[in-house]
This record gives sequence, C-alpha cells and structure tokens, in this order.
Amino acid sequence: MKKFMGIAASSGIAIGPALKLPKFDLSFENQTIDDVGAEIRRLQTAVMASKNELIKIQHITQKDLGSHEAGVFQFLVSILSNQMLIDQMVTLITNQKVTAEMAVTTVLRAYHERQKQAAVKPVSDQQIHEVMQRVLSHLLGAKPIEATALNQQAIVVAHELSPIQTAQLLPTMVQAIVTDVGGTTSHSVIMSRNFEIPIVVGLQNAETAINNGDMMIVNGSTGEVIVKPTSAQLEENIHRQREYEQQLHRRIRPVGQTKVTADRDRSLLAANINDPADVAKALANGAQAIGLFRTEFLYLKAHQLPTEAEQFRAYKAVLTQMGEKPVIIRTADIGGDKQETTGAFDDQMNPYLGLRGLRLSLTHQSIFRTQLRALLRASAYGKLSIMFPMVTTLHELRVAKALLDQERIKLLSEGVAIGRLKVGMMVEVPVVAIMADQFVNDVDFMSLGTNDLTQYLLAADRGNEQVADLYQPENPAIFRLVKSVIDACHDHQIPAFMCGELAADPLAIPILKGMGLDGFSMNPAAISYAKQLIDRLNTRRMVTLANEVVTMAADQKQVIDFVHQATANGHATYK
Amino acid sequence: MKKFMGIAASSGIAIGPALKLPKFDLSFENQTIDDVGAEIRRLQTAVMASKNELIKIQHITQKDLGSHEAGVFQFLVSILSNQMLIDQMVTLITNQKVTAEMAVTTVLRAYHERQKQAAVKPVSDQQIHEVMQRVLSHLLGAKPIEATALNQQAIVVAHELSPIQTAQLLPTMVQAIVTDVGGTTSHSVIMSRNFEIPIVVGLQNAETAINNGDMMIVNGSTGEVIVKPTSAQLEENIHRQREYEQQLHRRIRPVGQTKVTADRDRSLLAANINDPADVAKALANGAQAIGLFRTEFLYLKAHQLPTEAEQFRAYKAVLTQMGEKPVIIRTADIGGDKQETTGAFDDQMNPYLGLRGLRLSLTHQSIFRTQLRALLRASAYGKLSIMFPMVTTLHELRVAKALLDQERIKLLSEGVAIGRLKVGMMVEVPVVAIMADQFVNDVDFMSLGTNDLTQYLLAADRGNEQVADLYQPENPAIFRLVKSVIDACHDHQIPAFMCGELAADPLAIPILKGMGLDGFSMNPAAISYAKQLIDRLNTRRMVTLANEVVTMAADQKQVIDFVHQATANGHATYK
Repeated sequence: MKKFMGIAASSGIAIGPALKLPKFDLSFENQTIDDVGAEIRRLQTAVMASKNELIKIQHITQKDLGSHEAGVFQFLVSILSNQMLIDQMVTLITNQKVTAEMAVTTVLRAYHERQKQAAVKPVSDQQIHEVMQRVLSHLLGAKPIEATALNQQAIVVAHELSPIQTAQLLPTMVQAIVTDVGGTTSHSVIMSRNFEIPIVVGLQNAETAINNGDMMIVNGSTGEVIVKPTSAQLEENIHRQREYEQQLHRRIRPVGQTKVTADRDRSLLAANINDPADVAKALANGAQAIGLFRTEFLYLKAHQLPTEAEQFRAYKAVLTQMGEKPVIIRTADIGGDKQETTGAFDDQMNPYLGLRGLRLSLTHQSIFRTQLRALLRASAYGKLSIMFPMVTTLHELRVAKALLDQERIKLLSEGVAIGRLKVGMMVEVPVVAIMADQFVNDVDFMSLGTNDLTQYLLAADRGNEQVADLYQPENPAIFRLVKSVIDACHDHQIPAFMCGELAADPLAIPILKGMGLDGFSMNPAAISYAKQLIDRLNTRRMVTLANEVVTMAADQKQVIDFVHQATANGHATYK
Repeated sequence: MKKFMGIAASSGIAIGPALKLPKFDLSFENQTIDDVGAEIRRLQTAVMASKNELIKIQHITQKDLGSHEAGVFQFLVSILSNQMLIDQMVTLITNQKVTAEMAVTTVLRAYHERQKQAAVKPVSDQQIHEVMQRVLSHLLGAKPIEATALNQQAIVVAHELSPIQTAQLLPTMVQAIVTDVGGTTSHSVIMSRNFEIPIVVGLQNAETAINNGDMMIVNGSTGEVIVKPTSAQLEENIHRQREYEQQLHRRIRPVGQTKVTADRDRSLLAANINDPADVAKALANGAQAIGLFRTEFLYLKAHQLPTEAEQFRAYKAVLTQMGEKPVIIRTADIGGDKQETTGAFDDQMNPYLGLRGLRLSLTHQSIFRTQLRALLRASAYGKLSIMFPMVTTLHELRVAKALLDQERIKLLSEGVAIGRLKVGMMVEVPVVAIMADQFVNDVDFMSLGTNDLTQYLLAADRGNEQVADLYQPENPAIFRLVKSVIDACHDHQIPAFMCGELAADPLAIPILKGMGLDGFSMNPAAISYAKQLIDRLNTRRMVTLANEVVTMAADQKQVIDFVHQATANGHATYK
C-alpha cells in the first residue's frame, strides 16, 4: 500500500486499476528526401487523418460539453484546413527536399510567430503544440491516444495532460485522472468536472511510482490517492463513494450519456436483447444503449448452471461490442413463465405470484454471487448498469446490494479491475411502483417492466386467453403509476427507463414522452419506427396529453381517444 | 295503469308495492264496569306500554333526527308520566265505574282544555289525539303501527299520517309515502326529507283507488304517482331514480344508518358471514351490519347450481334476521381458491389471475341473472346492498348493473316487490384502487378487499409458503392505496368500507380510523375487540398517524413502528 496526497481538483471517488498513458517518441531526424511526390502524399495523409480526428473530437465535445469547449477544436481544425499553410509545407518539401515532419514543424512555428505578432486572438503555444504533435504522431506511426488508452475502465495516470488529451479521454472509460503537475483551474480540470470524473493533480512523482494495473483509490474531494489498498480501505471507500453520490442527489446518468432527464427533448432509444449475438442487430437498428440484457438464456439453455467464466464472457461480449454506449444487464429473472432446466431451483405452483426473479436469487445466494462476480468483472469493459428484477421490498434490494458490495471488495482485493457501474431496479411489482419515492434513494435508475406490472395490476395472467380482454397495457391506471414512478425518479434526479412492451407501443409513446420518460428500451426491430414517431412529437403537446390521460381517462378506450386527438390534429402534433 | 298527480313534498323516486296502513276501530261503548281493580290494571298496563313505545320512538328520533324533533315525543311521554292525570283516571274508574277507555279520553280532554286556557305552550289537538289513540289502541287490542306496517319494503299509502306515525314509519322499510291530504310544510314531510324518503301529498282519492300490493312509482320531485306501471314506465323510472341519486352527489348511506362519512367519530362495525346461520353469531357479537355475506357456500356446497328460490330463501333469511340493519351481499366470487363443485365452470390454470368473481359471472350470464333475481326478490325484506367482486373495468361494472336493471324491470313487471337497494363494488384489483375516482360515480359504496389486493400488489400468492414473508398486509403501499380509495369515496360522498382481514388487524385499525374508513367488516368473533380498540382511539391523533404512514413509511416495519408510537404514548392516545 502506498499513499499520495495531491490537490483535489474534481470531486468524487474512483476505485480501479492504473493505466499509464503510453509515451511516444515524436523526435525525427532532419534528413533530405528523394521522392518528393511520396513525401507530399505522406504529409497529406497525416494532415487529413489528424483533421478527421480533430473533427470527431470536436463533435464529441460539442455534444458533451457544449459549443464553447468545442470551439477550441474547431480552431485547431481550421489550422489544418488552412490551404496556405499546407501549400507552404508542400513548397518546403518540393524545394528543399525536407521531410514532411520538418515541413510541418517549420511552417506551424512560423505561423505561430506571425499570429503572436498580429496579437489578434493568438494561437496558444499549447494549441500549436497539439496540432504539431498530432500530425507528427501520424507521420511517425504512433497510435492516437483514444485508440490505445482505454479498452477497459481504468484510472489514468499521467505526468501531465493537455486539454485535447483530456477531451479525448473523458468520453471513454476513464474512471479518474491523476497527474503529477497541473492546477485546479486548468482547462482539463474544468472539463473533467463536467463529466463528474474525479481528478487529483500535483502528485509530483506519482507517475513514476505507480505501475500499470496497480489497484488504486482516487479521492478527488480530499486529494488522497492510495495505491494497492487493503481490503479495509477498499470497503471503506466503496461506502464513501456511495455516500458521496447520494449526498450529491445528483442526476446520475448512464455513463457517457448526456443528462437525459435534464433535457426532455432527448429520449434514449435502447434495445432489449437476449443474447450477445443480438448486439449487432441492436446497433444496426440505431440502439443508443442496451436497455435490457436478459441473462436467462444462460440458465435456460444449459443443462447445468453457467460458470462465472462463461457468464463473464457473455457480459464482456455485449459490453465491448457496445463500446461507450451504456448497457443494462438484468440479473437472472428465472420463474414466472421462464423456467430453467438445470433442476437447481424448485418447481413453482403459481409461478407469477411465487418465488421468481430477485426472490429466487436471494434464496440461492451462491448462484447469485457467481452472477454478480461475472458482472463485476465484465464492468471494466464498458458502461455497465446492473439491474435487479422483481424487487418487492427495500430489504431485498439492500440485501442484493450488500452481496454485490461483498463480491466487489473480494474482487478488488484480488486486484481485479471493476468499472464504475450503476445499480438499478426493475419496477414491475405494483407496491414498488406505488412506493417509488421510497426506493429512489437506493438506486441509480429505475426501469419500468410494464408486462408484469400490467398483469398484476389487472390481476390478469397474460397467458390466459379467458381474461385476454382484461390484460390491458393501455389501462389508464398503468399510466398513472408510470407517471408517479417517473416523477419520483426526477424528484430524486435519477433517470426513469422502460423496458416493457409499452415502451414500443405507438399509442403509449406519445404519453410516455409527455411524462418525460428518459429511455425507451425495446425489441431492436421496433427502434427505428419509435424514433421516427418520437422525433415527430411536439413535446409540449405531449405533456398536456399525459396530464389528460392520468387525470381524465376512465378506461383504456378513453386513453386511446386522447392519444388520437393529441397526435392527429394537424400542426399541433408537430414541432 | 293509473296515474295520479299530487303535491311533490319530498323529492326522490321510489318503485315498489303499495302498503295501506291498517285502520283500527278505536270506538268503544260507554258502559259501566264491575271489577274496578281489573279495570285499573287494564289502564295501567296500557299507559305503561304506550309510554314505553313513545320513549323508544323518542330515542330513535333523537338518533336519526336530532333533539328538536325528539322533543315532541318527550312531551307526549311527559303527559303519560303525569301522576295527577293517571290519578284522575283511576278516580273516575273507581267512583263512576267507567271503562278505562272512557277514563283516558275524559281526563285527557279535560287536561287539553285546561292547557288551552293556560295558553302557555299548549298541547296541540293532534298531540292529545296521538296520546289518546295510542292508549286506546292498547286497551282495544289494536296492534301498534310499527309492528304491523312493514315486514318488507313498500310504499305506504294513507289518507293522512300524523307526525308520530311518520316518525314510527321512517326508520322502517318504507320506500315512499303518499297521502290524500297534507301540505308540503307539515311536520311529517319535514321529517321525511331528513330521511330522503320521497313523499307525495294531496292525492285526494288515491287511498281508496289503490289496493294493497299494487306496484307503484312515486315521484316525489314531480308529484306524479303511477299505479300498475308498464314495463316502459318501470324502465324509465329506474333510470330516473339513478340519475336523481347521481345528480344529488349526496352522501348515500346504508339505509337506516346515520351519515357514516359525515361523522368521523362513528365507525360501523360489521360482520363477514358465510351462511344465514352465522347471523345470530354476528348479532351476538354486536355487529351493526353485515358487511360481507359471501354467497359462495350456495355454489360450493351443492352438487348442482342453486335455484332462484333456494338463493332467495338464504338471502331473505339474512335480511329478516338483520331487520333494519344493513346487509351487503356479494355476488358469487367463484374462482381463485374457491372452486365450485357443480362442474358448471371450466377449470382454471392460474386461478388468482384468471376468470373469477364478476368475470366468471359475466361469462355465465344465465347463472348470474338467477342470482340477481334472487337478490332483487330478497331486497324487499331488509336493507340490502348488492356488491360485485373482482371488478376490473368500468365496462364490467356497467354490464353487471345493466343486467341487474333488466332483472329488476322484469320482476317489477311481474308485480314483485323490490326494495330500495344499493349497489357497490369490491376494490381488490389494483387498477380499481388506483382508479377509484373514476368508479365512484357508478356505485353507492366501495368495499376494500385487502386479501386479494395485497397478493396482487406484492405479487405474492398468499398460499405459497416460499413467498410468505412477501405477503405483507401492512406494507405501506397498501395503506397509500387504501387512503386514495377512501378519499375518492369521500370526495364523491359515498362511504368506504373494508371487508378484508386488514379491517380486523389491531395494527391497521388505528391507521384506517385515521383515514376515516366508514365501516370495518370482519369475522364476528373479532368485532368486540375491534370496537374496544376503536373506542379508545383519539381520532385526531390517528389522522396524523395515517398521514405519517402514507408519506413517510418505507416498509412494513416502519408502519408498525409508527402505529406503536401513536397508540402507546400515554394520554395522547385516548380521548
């Protein structure tokens, strides 16, 4: 165990393995070249690649941090788009037979000097340096930072980070940043705060003292950095981390997503999948996230319980395919109509009202712990949220979270990297929907499972044809409850998602949109139509529609009538 | 069909058979008697009986109409308690050998004359007449009006009614009153309005034109009286009757009960019974009503479906035993854990979420109609409310009510007397609890069935041991819903009852009391303890408790803690 004290620059607590940014040698020899044409092509390729990268970073920054921050990158792009500068480089190569490397540095330095003399909005040393470094890295075959840095969640350890490096790192899987130099008002730090990424700066000699893969605890609120912590320190800091997030009462968003609840006009469109093989279909259909990965397939297909390694592979496969997009994985929802075949669980007489979902997991804790360990291991490879199904009481939820913490501490003690993960719950048992305001403190998000919710609320088995007319997904009572759940989430600044069939129901979407539902998760095939529909809706009109439905509709037919009125009357519907 | 127009004196519409009050010959011969001692005993017996009757009427009037109205009877009692007057009668018999009849009339007339001359708060002719008639009727062996008039619900037809006769009739099973004479401001009429009993006066010759048992429609709002109406007239007036009651949005109380929702300090304690044989036990335990008569025993015991006559006998037996106390009979709640044995219904795979209760009745309408007819016939013999189980949608409720109306019209057309009955529904399917405000317009009362409600809300089969810890009757979500149902009822001025096990739960009673629950119905054996508990509770403190539970309790344990705090801290608990 080693402890460092630095300067607390962006608050929060992170626990994870160290990742030291690779250093590339960008030095070059000043030699003359033979093939002028080839050298000019080398230059143009490197400039084009650099420009494209900067445009991409500009777009990400624009989306995540706004126009002001993105302006920096736009300016850098403009330098590489300046045809006069490119012409000067080409002339140098042609006339003086210098390398592309020399041409770039010479021309950019001269440009920088002229700008400084003009004194109108000068290019900073750092900005010129960034552009130069980037083009050079392409010329010299060094990989760009974003491609090499993070293929799993980690704490970035660096001597120093430029704003551009920071902007490139932030939207990836970085858990925290520690640097030897830097101050609390630097551009990097300000951007990090926007991302709620803990930063400690001014550690002086940490970069050399820390090895790649060392387990670390970074406390961005106190400036404390612990390397290779003890189990007790891990446990203590997991609790501190949770307390910090609760104290903040902040809008916890799926990692990498914009603040979904802040902007009612944005709705996350996500996919429900059953198997890692479904991810490709989800992405092809435009899914912005996996809103529900059902893990039952692991238990239902096999004739023996899945091992931790098998599960880890499946979860990691989904996470890596989704990259920076959030993934919600639900722990096993065995029971109900999903009976497993391994014989590990007892048969149920009245399965829908019996031992199923989390209830079953909590009575078979060793099986459950195996799943949690696999999930925790996988969390390092993407933006993972773990979700518990069929939660009925706060007690159950807290027991499940305690088991998760126990496994988390064990794994961290073993030096296993664990990502910054979210914990959420399904809202499908009616009491939980009614009491949502009492559960929001204990989760990072809620996801409405309307299929089960509907059958319990209407006391109508959706598999029973004799009561098929009573299984009413659009019954106004459901919308009343859904609204109260969404409101409870938003009052506590956590997002509310839905992964039941209602989320893809064209009649329900306008109402749910009006209620401010943050994410619609559905069969991948339904996403494209839902997106078209959502894009067409006038949000303000939908808010009115939602209020009509919850206060005035007496039955399903009236709900449908209200939706038709609100979406069919010409201009009012459209933005 | 005959039609009369009278003077509308107390609004409302009644449909039922005519009952002409029996006329007794109170004339007597002026003869001398031999046995003075025997004649004095005759006098004293008649005076004592008359006085006791008047005291009883006085108490009823006090309870139902208040002190002002009761004062009249207290004054009449005081006349018969006046020892000087009794002495004068005894002296007449002793000295002049006159009959007790003669002694009573002579002394009371003389007393009346003296009072008139004294001119201080004189006794009215009518009051003296009432006292005289009552004592004479006892002497001459005529039965008192309340004993003879109404053993089933009927429309009273009279030439004229005194206030005393009216006061005696009102708390019984009278549906309406029509008289040949009388004005709209008479004492009788004012009292009737308090009871919400329609009255038409000034019909001139109706009393002779109408025969006992004639089906009648009395419209106390227009003054129209129809004798032997057509089916169309019956149908029209059944609808008018309903519209009238809905328009009024009035606090519809169980017939004969005080306005239960108006006075939060009064709670009706009622019994749940399974068989007419249980009524005795209910009454012995102090039940003020039958809050739930389960009719399944008729279907579950037999090996063939019960006939209309069999059912009628069972329902009438309960109603007649309960007399003026309200009786709520629930239509068959077959299904769930109550499977009948006649083979008339299909087996269910997942019975709690399947075809049961009203759902089953609506799919087997001829069986349902038979039960409705038996209930309608029985309604003439007491204060009946019909209640439908497992209502899920407004549509179901309206279909059930339409079938009831159809059978009602058929029976009335056949000349069968039908009582003034109430129609209510069980609230046990979660959607209905959530949407209670949308159902209150269609019923006269609601009754919370917390056993099923609990199992649906918690998705926990109460018969499944593996989820026994999740079947939580005191989960705060249940109290939230119960409160919203009670509030919806009271906003619409109908009473909210409860007939689930929660109503007898010592931990729940304080909360329910605080929410203003109007009636607690339970196993007869539990009534006495519940009454003691309720009497001890400080209503105002319980209102606070109820608010704590619905806003602050996160789980069942916290609910229990709040109740213990509210009921265990010394003086604060008690009135």
